[in-house]
Amino acid sequence: MNYPIKKKATAKVSASAANRGMDLEKAINDTNQYYIDNDLAYIYKKPIPIQIVKVDYARRSAAKISEAYYKIPSTTDYNGIYRGKYVDFEAKETRSKTSFPLKNIHEHQVVHLANVKRHGGIAFIIVHFSLLGRSFFLDSEHVERFYARSEAGKKSITLTEFEEFGHELKEAYVKRLDYLWVIDKHYL
Amino acid sequence: MNYPIKKKATAKVSASAANRGMDLEKAINDTNQYYIDNDLAYIYKKPIPIQIVKVDYARRSAAKISEAYYKIPSTTDYNGIYRGKYVDFEAKETRSKTSFPLKNIHEHQVVHLANVKRHGGIAFIIVHFSLLGRSFFLDSEHVERFYARSEAGKKSITLTEFEEFGHELKEAYVKRLDYLWVIDKHYL
Repeated sequence: MNYPIKKKATAKVSASAANRGMDLEKAINDTNQYYIDNDLAYIYKKPIPIQIVKVDYARRSAAKISEAYYKIPSTTDYNGIYRGKYVDFEAKETRSKTSFPLKNIHEHQVVHLANVKRHGGIAFIIVHFSLLGRSFFLDSEHVERFYARSEAGKKSITLTEFEEFGHELKEAYVKRLDYLWVIDKHYL
Repeated sequence: MNYPIKKKATAKVSASAANRGMDLEKAINDTNQYYIDNDLAYIYKKPIPIQIVKVDYARRSAAKISEAYYKIPSTTDYNGIYRGKYVDFEAKETRSKTSFPLKNIHEHQVVHLANVKRHGGIAFIIVHFSLLGRSFFLDSEHVERFYARSEAGKKSITLTEFEEFGHELKEAYVKRLDYLWVIDKHYL
């Protein structure tokens, strides 16, 4: 029964989950879908930025992209609208138990969040400490501040700093990782 | 001097420009860049949605995507923020001199624009009649209405309807295709 093809497929899924933080992504996608289904907010995932190099038009039905590369993202993963406000965030996972390494966020993304905030939007990151099972909402103002500090040497945001400056998000069954309450309470 | 490779490259560029409305895209990108440079608004182009099928990790430096396909877009090309408001639009070009064929807009995109509007955002399309050199801003409310009508037979929005319900955008040298004035005047 254990066909090699099946093993391979399983291995691929695991690698992808580990690399891209699939649990967090799924929790956020489910949460956003809950918001959409209940017409509470309209927040969605952006496409992954790709640099297309070669397209094969040989088949009539669909152009096949035969060479492309992942681009360094200039914006964030999620954006949308809630109670008329522009909402924008990046979601990241870490296996560290003590701090979130800032190398996980690109400088372009920090600038993007700052731009959103300056123009009146709500900009933040969600960080999931996977081995602790804890998640935090942190406003882009703090992200900027800690990012600036990282250039002076300290290359991470500690768990204690998330506890002090962020808002802890609790996992639940239906609204998997509700974050709109933070916006209701602290922004609107 | 006329190497075949050079001819081929030229042909490719032209085809791409014709298919994807490059002039309009460039005009809008330049306009958005002007807005960003002058800190008037923060509106940007989303990545193109791609279905990735095969990734080649053989090279150490960069994962190569060796098989992927264009997906039908579920959202629009552009979104961002202006004076605190969520702004979202799709830009399309037509060579028709009399009407804009609605097959150029996917149903998902019409739903997306309606979602944005319902949650308090500013949602519209920009249509460029390339052979007339005229461009129009049309609110998603009208797009929805004409799209609904298209199911009853009429599959386009006429130039006269753009003149009646839309706002004409004039091309200029610096702000290539300014559209923020419509938002200032009719939304804020």
